[in-house]
Amino acid sequence: MINAADRSLFSDDHHAFRDTVRKVLADVIEPRLDDHERNGIVEREAWARVGAAGLLCPQVPEAYGGPGLDFSFNAIVGEELSYLGSAAGFTLQSDIVADYLVHYASEEQKKRYLPGMVDGTTITAIAMTEPGAGSDLQGIRTTAKRDGNGWTLSGSKTYITNGFSADLVIVVARTTEEGGAKGLSLFLVEDGDEGFSRGRNLDKIGLHGNDTAELFFDEVSLPADRLIGAENAAFIMLMQQLPQERLSIAVQCQAGAQRAYDEAVKFTSDRKAFGRRIIDFQNSRFTLADMTAKLQVGWAHLDWAIARHVAGRLTPAEASAAKLWHSETGWGIMDAALQLHGGAGYMNEYPIARLWRDARVARIYGGTSEIMKELIGRSLG
Amino acid sequence: MINAADRSLFSDDHHAFRDTVRKVLADVIEPRLDDHERNGIVEREAWARVGAAGLLCPQVPEAYGGPGLDFSFNAIVGEELSYLGSAAGFTLQSDIVADYLVHYASEEQKKRYLPGMVDGTTITAIAMTEPGAGSDLQGIRTTAKRDGNGWTLSGSKTYITNGFSADLVIVVARTTEEGGAKGLSLFLVEDGDEGFSRGRNLDKIGLHGNDTAELFFDEVSLPADRLIGAENAAFIMLMQQLPQERLSIAVQCQAGAQRAYDEAVKFTSDRKAFGRRIIDFQNSRFTLADMTAKLQVGWAHLDWAIARHVAGRLTPAEASAAKLWHSETGWGIMDAALQLHGGAGYMNEYPIARLWRDARVARIYGGTSEIMKELIGRSLG
Amino acid sequence: MINAADRSLFSDDHHAFRDTVRKVLADVIEPRLDDHERNGIVEREAWARVGAAGLLCPQVPEAYGGPGLDFSFNAIVGEELSYLGSAAGFTLQSDIVADYLVHYASEEQKKRYLPGMVDGTTITAIAMTEPGAGSDLQGIRTTAKRDGNGWTLSGSKTYITNGFSADLVIVVARTTEEGGAKGLSLFLVEDGDEGFSRGRNLDKIGLHGNDTAELFFDEVSLPADRLIGAENAAFIMLMQQLPQERLSIAVQCQAGAQRAYDEAVKFTSDRKAFGRRIIDFQNSRFTLADMTAKLQVGWAHLDWAIARHVAGRLTPAEASAAKLWHSETGWGIMDAALQLHGGAGYMNEYPIARLWRDARVARIYGGTSEIMKELIGRSLG
Amino acid sequence: MINAADRSLFSDDHHAFRDTVRKVLADVIEPRLDDHERNGIVEREAWARVGAAGLLCPQVPEAYGGPGLDFSFNAIVGEELSYLGSAAGFTLQSDIVADYLVHYASEEQKKRYLPGMVDGTTITAIAMTEPGAGSDLQGIRTTAKRDGNGWTLSGSKTYITNGFSADLVIVVARTTEEGGAKGLSLFLVEDGDEGFSRGRNLDKIGLHGNDTAELFFDEVSLPADRLIGAENAAFIMLMQQLPQERLSIAVQCQAGAQRAYDEAVKFTSDRKAFGRRIIDFQNSRFTLADMTAKLQVGWAHLDWAIARHVAGRLTPAEASAAKLWHSETGWGIMDAALQLHGGAGYMNEYPIARLWRDARVARIYGGTSEIMKELIGRSLG
Repeated sequence: MINAADRSLFSDDHHAFRDTVRKVLADVIEPRLDDHERNGIVEREAWARVGAAGLLCPQVPEAYGGPGLDFSFNAIVGEELSYLGSAAGFTLQSDIVADYLVHYASEEQKKRYLPGMVDGTTITAIAMTEPGAGSDLQGIRTTAKRDGNGWTLSGSKTYITNGFSADLVIVVARTTEEGGAKGLSLFLVEDGDEGFSRGRNLDKIGLHGNDTAELFFDEVSLPADRLIGAENAAFIMLMQQLPQERLSIAVQCQAGAQRAYDEAVKFTSDRKAFGRRIIDFQNSRFTLADMTAKLQVGWAHLDWAIARHVAGRLTPAEASAAKLWHSETGWGIMDAALQLHGGAGYMNEYPIARLWRDARVARIYGGTSEIMKELIGRSLG
Repeated sequence: MINAADRSLFSDDHHAFRDTVRKVLADVIEPRLDDHERNGIVEREAWARVGAAGLLCPQVPEAYGGPGLDFSFNAIVGEELSYLGSAAGFTLQSDIVADYLVHYASEEQKKRYLPGMVDGTTITAIAMTEPGAGSDLQGIRTTAKRDGNGWTLSGSKTYITNGFSADLVIVVARTTEEGGAKGLSLFLVEDGDEGFSRGRNLDKIGLHGNDTAELFFDEVSLPADRLIGAENAAFIMLMQQLPQERLSIAVQCQAGAQRAYDEAVKFTSDRKAFGRRIIDFQNSRFTLADMTAKLQVGWAHLDWAIARHVAGRLTPAEASAAKLWHSETGWGIMDAALQLHGGAGYMNEYPIARLWRDARVARIYGGTSEIMKELIGRSLG
Repeated sequence: MINAADRSLFSDDHHAFRDTVRKVLADVIEPRLDDHERNGIVEREAWARVGAAGLLCPQVPEAYGGPGLDFSFNAIVGEELSYLGSAAGFTLQSDIVADYLVHYASEEQKKRYLPGMVDGTTITAIAMTEPGAGSDLQGIRTTAKRDGNGWTLSGSKTYITNGFSADLVIVVARTTEEGGAKGLSLFLVEDGDEGFSRGRNLDKIGLHGNDTAELFFDEVSLPADRLIGAENAAFIMLMQQLPQERLSIAVQCQAGAQRAYDEAVKFTSDRKAFGRRIIDFQNSRFTLADMTAKLQVGWAHLDWAIARHVAGRLTPAEASAAKLWHSETGWGIMDAALQLHGGAGYMNEYPIARLWRDARVARIYGGTSEIMKELIGRSLG
Repeated sequence: MINAADRSLFSDDHHAFRDTVRKVLADVIEPRLDDHERNGIVEREAWARVGAAGLLCPQVPEAYGGPGLDFSFNAIVGEELSYLGSAAGFTLQSDIVADYLVHYASEEQKKRYLPGMVDGTTITAIAMTEPGAGSDLQGIRTTAKRDGNGWTLSGSKTYITNGFSADLVIVVARTTEEGGAKGLSLFLVEDGDEGFSRGRNLDKIGLHGNDTAELFFDEVSLPADRLIGAENAAFIMLMQQLPQERLSIAVQCQAGAQRAYDEAVKFTSDRKAFGRRIIDFQNSRFTLADMTAKLQVGWAHLDWAIARHVAGRLTPAEASAAKLWHSETGWGIMDAALQLHGGAGYMNEYPIARLWRDARVARIYGGTSEIMKELIGRSLG
């Protein structure tokens, strides 16, 4: 279990919130984990129940149906969800999509979309990556052309988390051929918009517990009120939001690694080989000790980073460093934990196998480790 | 493609054999890879076709229907199969099961079983691991009790490759409570033996292209001619056969890593990001260069080890070192190759994702890396 | 430079203290670094000057001449000294030896020794390790036998930092053959005690800037007032003091790694190869980015650990984890920083070469990384 | 000891030669190792004795006083010297300098220089690196200007092995401003040439057992017969010779790593801690097992590479891969071996400390690991 009592970051309010989160997830998500894994999707009812319980979009102001808290509450949901081993796309909605609306949307847009996102009746996604373009904003070829007061959106996106179930998608599209990454805008596309369709639910190594899809936009007519913020201003908005996205992934990695470690301690304490508990072999203890040290360091850093972000001081380079370190270190812990399970670790019925398969994506999505290094590197010398 | 022309290990006969292997696998296996993956099993027809083409059990003498070659021919099949990305359990039959029969079975047993193993009409497995016991021979609890001239076999085994489809299974069972690992014997259990049943096809992280099952033995009556070799002599036989098993896994790891590398070179040469081919970034080139060096070293070592094994000189500790190094190094190459694919690497539709999921088991099965270290360590000081 | 302004751990008092520390070290130590390296010792005058400036023994209460501060001030001295690249044994005196006296010595002992330790006129050491015994307290063979009211001390110690220059040495000796590690006591041995002699200043890989010696005790008569605390109570005292010792080493490692990083940024920004600054190559930037992330994580963790220690809550296992992680991670940063220097990195005239040679010991002394893992491992499962 | 009997590369002639090498090094070098380390130089008498015994320049044809053997004999000297832990610059003369003369020098030059190089009365060096230019041939600023039939050489070089003691230095200099790396030529500079002087013997982290110097050329007049090969042809010659240089370093790394391993086995078998031999702890055995595997793989690869080089088939990229892998892997083994020594490993009196300090340079000289990756990377895709 995540030892939150001992972390200076959290007040009694946080602890009470965490208790709620644990209880709700234990009720709503834990019994359905195998179903989510099998179906490749989290059913709408679960979204509505976690929303009703107050777990979605903690940062949304009260005026739009939210509790008006700060990111430290998002982090609690993210930690507990990852510790549970759920791949549900709640944090994407809470930590990423909601923030674009809160910060850049018009009053009308906020009123239209945020209450549903908070109560879980609206499922959202954000669509940046395109087939063949990866993390390269300059390479985006989905275009939105002026059409009267509105736009016509054409193109396709891929690897979109919640893409199959989303009622609302923020789409990054090119609104001018000039300016490279500076010629992009953000649009709101709704389920049912004519010309908007989805490919199959993608078959991934892990994260089977959420849906990931390709999205197609075939001359989708968008009225004027589907633009978020100013035209050609997407780059700035993306840059401003990336730190929270990266920190959100760092949170997942740390909590997932803690769970993997706890599984490994449990497994090696229960199983025997050659007449001894596996944990009683020096190699097992040394491996676990190394993981213990990395987890200790990781929690200290995560708390520092969350506090700094809540204070508005976490820089893009620092957030990238957090994502880089937690995803790489977390992966090392995952892999060592799986290895300590021996043959059982390779069987999907054991939690470690799922955790491990799910964790591999963290070094890739939200910007690969190589992109993180590139971003940090630019801030040097 | 595996560059065999350049390796001193191989004669013209080997090259001709490899050409055949490639052609047959391209005909029989490659078009069915997705089916095998989906079904979790290789259909009997494929076994029969590769058998008919002479790809199974190269070491079986002509007297029993085989070609009477040496392990270097097994290695060619293993390399090409792994390079193709097939998880088919052919090498288990050729490299491991057949060898027990060739070396330790009676004339009658050889005549009864080997021809079908060579022509692919008989599918085989070997059952050592038990639920909760892992690699620990001392912990084996499946027992065979004397019953007239024969035995009564009771117990269960798990993680048995080909276990679901096998017509014949070599089972390691305890024949005396004394002697720990020295009180074990090998038995032949046939499909249809009363009391022999199988659990479900296990749900693994990878290796979906073969079947892996739990086997149950509920007072299976075995006549006298189902014992292989002498009573209580399994330990010696297992120890003698383990080097070839471990070398067989090393072969797979090296060839699989070569394929992963080739995929990464191809992917990074085809895809662009930020206006350049991915391979044109220094980090990509450096990563590939590191993999290049490891593959070069690996092929040289593998050829040394195969030659030494064919000459009968590869020691158990050396075979363990080969398995340890190739499985760990191969994994590193796999993981780096996946990372070079970015988001595509996480999608099962790309070959790298399958290769990567399949490769993870090599650090576990046939004895974990930790067991390899233990075995090497015992030969020191 | 260490960015202390940005760390939440420190108040204005700390910042003022750090300013003093920097100024004093720049005056007293920096100009003598090469001399210390060449001579293998820090001259007594330097000890007296840093003592007079208030840099020694921050935790010693005012009653004994000290400032009565907490360990966060020790950390500041340790950070700045390591950042400067000095191997001077000040922190050994401040962080380790002084604490034994403050916590366990009698009023008379405190009055006799502490004021000189604070003002730098008394140089101290602590002698645990014995030739051939390493970190194993049970293996200690130096004995103190009852002799009237006092003891007769016989044996030898090795790898003793400040051992050549120490006026006062705390010696761990066996006072009863029974009880293994529980039969040890702590004694104060003074320069000039008959039978106490020293071997040569040991020739080490690094840390040339301090003296390290073998100590010999040939029937040294010790009066009753040379015992610290109770007889046979050394084990408990050692266990209680080890967290601070380990945290002290973690501080050094982090600050040294920061310096190595700063040197690497500077070197790669200044030097050109193939027509570009070295830092402009993607590999250099990626390497530095990885180091940046580890340093960010390290500072956050260090601040957490110092705060927790000052609050009296840092457990032995946590302190071991801190030492393990900072020494291993710091070493990785050191080695990468040296590599970025190319041929210059191998030349002792460059700061990085000294930093690197000095840093290697941190994975060994104060308990090797293996001992740390053993200690952490014992707290598990 | 290096187990050569078991390696297929070597014939009885090789074994006999190795016996001689071992005997001569045991007589001439081993008793002087400490002196060489202290003095930073190998005395001329030792050069002459190893030369007289036939250990220098195996590839020099009989016509010039050599034995006319192939590189496999160089490798034997290199292995035994590195295994002994000597940093003597014999292999530089045998493996690198001699080859330039044998392949590119005029008949007169060969007759003038080679016999002395073979019998050890002439000590040689090769000077490529310049202050601030590293491995970048394009950045070379030492120039040789036409002056009648001859040239005037001006500039400086650094990190020159044998630079302090060399009677003869091959100097890479720019002979035309055009063509970048293609405007370079090779010159022979003799001790005593007016304007040729040397800086101090450089203070290095390791390799104290040879001299490394900065060289200065202040308008040195060189007659026509000091040019090697054609004008502006240095680049081609350097490219052709680099594979042997890199293989020579790989040989050193492998043999040095074997020695470090042997030292670690011996130390951990001799020393006890906590009542057991250090080698009896699982962590020690696992660490040694991992090193065992890497050494096994390394010897197999080295033999492959030597055989391929002797056959004239080792490509520049393959040689770079060999240098990269053996220097990086060898370093890992070195560092693990030092760690297994605990505190003793940090003391220069133990062989492991010297081996470790010496080994660090192999990732840097002869082209850094980064340069190796760059070169391998260029051969891809």
